[in-house]
Amino acid sequence: MSFPRVGVIGAGQLARMMAPAAEALGVHFHVLAESADGPATHVSSHVTVGDYKDYATLKQFASTVDVITFDHEHVPNEHLVKLIDEGFNVHPGPHALQYAQNKLKMRAKIDELGLPNPRWAQIETVDDLGAFVREHGAVVLKTPTGGYDGHGVAFIRSEADLEAVSDWFSSGPLLAEQLIDFSRELAVMVGRSPSGQTAVWPVVATRQKDGICYEAVAPAPGLDADLARTITQDVLTLAHALDVTGVMALEMFQTADGYLVNELAMRPHNTGHWTQDGSVTSQFEQHLRAVLDLPLGDPSPLAPYTAMGNVLGADRDDLYHAYLHVLAHDPRAKVHMYGKSVRPGRKLGHVNVTGENPEDVAQRALHAAEFIAGVDDNPWPNRTEKA
Amino acid sequence: MSFPRVGVIGAGQLARMMAPAAEALGVHFHVLAESADGPATHVSSHVTVGDYKDYATLKQFASTVDVITFDHEHVPNEHLVKLIDEGFNVHPGPHALQYAQNKLKMRAKIDELGLPNPRWAQIETVDDLGAFVREHGAVVLKTPTGGYDGHGVAFIRSEADLEAVSDWFSSGPLLAEQLIDFSRELAVMVGRSPSGQTAVWPVVATRQKDGICYEAVAPAPGLDADLARTITQDVLTLAHALDVTGVMALEMFQTADGYLVNELAMRPHNTGHWTQDGSVTSQFEQHLRAVLDLPLGDPSPLAPYTAMGNVLGADRDDLYHAYLHVLAHDPRAKVHMYGKSVRPGRKLGHVNVTGENPEDVAQRALHAAEFIAGVDDNPWPNRTEKA
Repeated sequence: MSFPRVGVIGAGQLARMMAPAAEALGVHFHVLAESADGPATHVSSHVTVGDYKDYATLKQFASTVDVITFDHEHVPNEHLVKLIDEGFNVHPGPHALQYAQNKLKMRAKIDELGLPNPRWAQIETVDDLGAFVREHGAVVLKTPTGGYDGHGVAFIRSEADLEAVSDWFSSGPLLAEQLIDFSRELAVMVGRSPSGQTAVWPVVATRQKDGICYEAVAPAPGLDADLARTITQDVLTLAHALDVTGVMALEMFQTADGYLVNELAMRPHNTGHWTQDGSVTSQFEQHLRAVLDLPLGDPSPLAPYTAMGNVLGADRDDLYHAYLHVLAHDPRAKVHMYGKSVRPGRKLGHVNVTGENPEDVAQRALHAAEFIAGVDDNPWPNRTEKA
Repeated sequence: MSFPRVGVIGAGQLARMMAPAAEALGVHFHVLAESADGPATHVSSHVTVGDYKDYATLKQFASTVDVITFDHEHVPNEHLVKLIDEGFNVHPGPHALQYAQNKLKMRAKIDELGLPNPRWAQIETVDDLGAFVREHGAVVLKTPTGGYDGHGVAFIRSEADLEAVSDWFSSGPLLAEQLIDFSRELAVMVGRSPSGQTAVWPVVATRQKDGICYEAVAPAPGLDADLARTITQDVLTLAHALDVTGVMALEMFQTADGYLVNELAMRPHNTGHWTQDGSVTSQFEQHLRAVLDLPLGDPSPLAPYTAMGNVLGADRDDLYHAYLHVLAHDPRAKVHMYGKSVRPGRKLGHVNVTGENPEDVAQRALHAAEFIAGVDDNPWPNRTEKA
């Protein structure tokens, strides 16, 4: 037996960042790209351009590798079932992926497992939604499938807001969730292999704006040890119950009583980017180890704290000069650029910083990211601690 | 100005391991490969297959990138001079590279700079060599150019050994060096950019067999602080004097009085592989930053000690099962495989381990590497310290 070949469907930044892990592991890395210029099309010589919604394309791609995995969750589930029926290895499998693809299924499963959900309901009509709003106050309305980074999400705070979403019901039932009064957002990632081996990273604190994560600090500063333990136990329960293979991210709201589940993702995730420079094993390496059923790596942190700041596109196209400034300003900052063109709100890269002090690393990572993007134009911010 | 393109001549493991650094930096990574299956041909979609000894091929490749750099030191120097004359950026430049390409020039330059050389001579005939041996006892004879990993090196301990090298003189003068009575071998790496910025990693202790490095421990355990300081100052002196751009490795013998220069390399080097997992900035990232004249990264260690063990080909072709064992046996071991077929003595990969105890990390890295290669068949060695 020789070193295996992994095929990733999708050529975004998540696939791109798997490539270095494949290089080190000695694993052959293939990409099925939607177009010839995606971020991951540059980091492998084994790139196929094709449509992941076309079964024949998927099957042809699958036949060139030992395992299929994903950069995103948009591959039609019925195609994956058929690939498995035809004997191909697909990780995570469609029986697990459905809970990341469909938020109604996810909510029902979280209830079934006894994990903490916000109040939620499957909503078929505007009238039902109105009733839910009257009962629970402010509500978050979500399309069950296809949403990401704030897309497919609406906030309903009054009867007046109902109007704006009246046409959302044409494509099927929606998910309504009570708007949570949370102190902060948390996330945790786990890797799980087909043989059932698991490895969990520390719980992280995240900050989001317009549904997009812009900062993560690992471990979550000041998190109560009992709550961290509960979350870690719960994410293992969830990973086993859903038979997740690869890495999974669980996003949560921290509340006065504990936490409530927000979202699930079954792939490397923005809230896990800190692991590239802050953990013995990065989420990208762990994902490849897991989907290939290699023994998992150690998820221990490398430093007391690691922070990640996202480079989100603003109104400046030239990132390069600000990037040069950041490299010179903080020689310990680990800058990760995705090779994408600038569009407002688009994820273009991120910066990781490790250190002793959570405020210091968070400030440095976020400043570096925002300075590159052009959101922060102060080239020398005050630091809470010198590096 | 946008993110630059770097072109590497040569597609061996050094080029392969530059690719992850290019991915993170957002730098476009191009490779000129001798054949379509070199280790670096898999890690980029921008691979040209061609002969680096052919000027037209070099020029065509250079015209697709912003900077040319190297996986090896074998590109004809006159071609590089011509590329520069035609306006291309070449780093390191031929005026620096000559000292890594020609050991006679290197020895003369080390003398000129007042750095510690072993006794040496340029030798034209077997008679001259006999005289040098009678004066200095055991001698190492080296071809001034083209040698690597023990090739082009002979040990002359007696008159009888002279016979075996009598035909070495047909291709020009040779380098004779007095065989050194050393306590151990050391190495240090520096990165230097065209603007003159430098960054030095800690001095490491290395072990070699048949001219091939099989172990490195960073920092060199128990190294006298004054000697470490002298070495670090000397390698900076050397880098500036030679106008090195990129990373340079200086290999040394530690002696009773201090150290003596052994070899120079102007590229990422085996004795610097530990930096991938043991330093804020790896030698591969620093090399790219340096040749592109980006600000250099912090070379600080991430752990008290990091050890590297080389996977050197033995008589077993199947590395995969032993590799699986190593991944499971030591989840903190960072395994780097080069994607090469097995040949005896060939460098196939390496393993880095970080920790508190230098004996422990060295034993774990070396065991992992030798177990993968099939040299060590003990799946559970005694450890000096549990991980």
